[in-house]
Amino acid sequence: MSLPISFADIEAAAARLHGVAHRTPVLTSRTADQLTSAQLYFKCENLQRMGAFKFRGAYNALAQFSPQQRKAGAISFSSGNHAQAIALSARLLGMPALIVMPADAPPLKITATRGYGAEVILYDRYTQDREALGAQLAAERGMTLIPPYDHPHVMAGQGTAALELVRDVGGLDVLLVCVGGGGLISGCAVAAKHLSPGCRVIGVEPEAGNDVQQSLRRGEIVHIDVPKTIADGAQTQHAGNLTFAVIRALVDDVLTVSDAQLVRAMGFFMERMKLVVEPTGCLAAAAALEGAMPLRGLRVGVILSGGNIDAERYARLLLQGAA
Amino acid sequence: MSLPISFADIEAAAARLHGVAHRTPVLTSRTADQLTSAQLYFKCENLQRMGAFKFRGAYNALAQFSPQQRKAGAISFSSGNHAQAIALSARLLGMPALIVMPADAPPLKITATRGYGAEVILYDRYTQDREALGAQLAAERGMTLIPPYDHPHVMAGQGTAALELVRDVGGLDVLLVCVGGGGLISGCAVAAKHLSPGCRVIGVEPEAGNDVQQSLRRGEIVHIDVPKTIADGAQTQHAGNLTFAVIRALVDDVLTVSDAQLVRAMGFFMERMKLVVEPTGCLAAAAALEGAMPLRGLRVGVILSGGNIDAERYARLLLQGAA
Repeated sequence: MSLPISFADIEAAAARLHGVAHRTPVLTSRTADQLTSAQLYFKCENLQRMGAFKFRGAYNALAQFSPQQRKAGAISFSSGNHAQAIALSARLLGMPALIVMPADAPPLKITATRGYGAEVILYDRYTQDREALGAQLAAERGMTLIPPYDHPHVMAGQGTAALELVRDVGGLDVLLVCVGGGGLISGCAVAAKHLSPGCRVIGVEPEAGNDVQQSLRRGEIVHIDVPKTIADGAQTQHAGNLTFAVIRALVDDVLTVSDAQLVRAMGFFMERMKLVVEPTGCLAAAAALEGAMPLRGLRVGVILSGGNIDAERYARLLLQGAA
Repeated sequence: MSLPISFADIEAAAARLHGVAHRTPVLTSRTADQLTSAQLYFKCENLQRMGAFKFRGAYNALAQFSPQQRKAGAISFSSGNHAQAIALSARLLGMPALIVMPADAPPLKITATRGYGAEVILYDRYTQDREALGAQLAAERGMTLIPPYDHPHVMAGQGTAALELVRDVGGLDVLLVCVGGGGLISGCAVAAKHLSPGCRVIGVEPEAGNDVQQSLRRGEIVHIDVPKTIADGAQTQHAGNLTFAVIRALVDDVLTVSDAQLVRAMGFFMERMKLVVEPTGCLAAAAALEGAMPLRGLRVGVILSGGNIDAERYARLLLQGAA
């Protein structure tokens, strides 16, 4: 069965993103290597434009709009980083953008999205269906809806993170990737398995929101309630049809970490690597640092997916970890 | 009059540090550029080994020890980052290290210094004279004292930060550098004036501890009481004889910023650039971001000197800035 995206799609995305997205640095830490007895390569998507990998997929999607689509613009619904990614990409490509965001999204993300020139409409994530609302607004305005993960252009764009990582550091034994709706891990799995065939691709979800772990074990998409976790970028209720097709084919396993483990990982990045990583961005790293799987002697890629978090919330989480 | 260090000394230091120190990244920020109407290049010494530029000078000094000096080892007194730099350099070069540190230094710095294998002796910075204590211990043990800034090998080592910056991004109109005892700015001034002759080199001190600003204006070294400022790396009471000779010859001006301005700059780096920068490390950047001098249209180098700060203290300062 053919997958929704191929390695050629990721290479084409990389060409579109060249000179537009940052080729983010890969950082290493002797302390992290000692803790894990492994060689860890942290791909710093927190240093990506607008602070998260999401820019890759959004720009790759919008850059392929027809002239007519560009005129009406892009619409999306998102818990945060995808919204900013669409807003920034739309501005760079000179088209309008409308973002449907949960009213309780981090204020920094709402402000930043408006700051990129997008129109923002807020909804209540516990009572309203964002997909229905997004579809309705898209129809009314003739805008093209770009969902946050279940879209081949979005998935291919996200895969460029792993493409750059493997090209920069060479073959990997393991690639750890956070999982929300599966856009990042599906793109990265296609890239990693192509460039480094023996590489095991492991997803990491919050303990409270392990829908993809459950789905992989059952062989079908499992739906869960909105999970309560500090990893706000992974509060998805289910994988997408396209992302799950790739996950099922290429992802070797999905692990989970607790919120307490995410807080400790945030503290590690702050104190030892001087990097601000948001809770969702710590998922993959927490699995490595907390010993969720044996890594001794292995070359391990770890994607730090984003760094967008309010100073106040970040500070309170650091204090919680220090207590 | 010849200066205590030449550009050739800095080039020699760069050769010694090659493959040992990180060639730290230079990051840019569209937001910072918009705020200042300038082009800012942030040299990220917070991402240097042991979290600060101090590693450059310490390693450059210890690497030039004679076999006999190596056997007895190195001693130093420091408010923190220099201590870790000596400790790490000594370990890398296989020699003993003894560090005299203030008892109220940040716990993270004391722990890290011991973690690098150095012996640590604590003193009270408000009642005891660290220089006398250091000299006494050095004599007793036959160790070579490496002061934190007033030493040509230390100054030349620190200058490699500006050498890398200008070689990476090209000529600069202004270089902003934090000033404690003057080790960093003296080395950087020699490098910048050589590689980018028209570049103005501007020091930045905490408002409460503007001894070098006063010294530059009077033409002689001014001594002050231990300043009360959150910039703990710049709580120096006076410049050194060697550093001041260079500062007087090559530094164009010294500005000051308040602790409140440092806190805002820390928040900026956290939220917008996802970087942890300690208060002292924010001095140069705060001057730029807060408009302490006109920068419109200029190419400006800004040295982020370090990122070593406890999670708890960092969190409390972020909350103070967010309030």
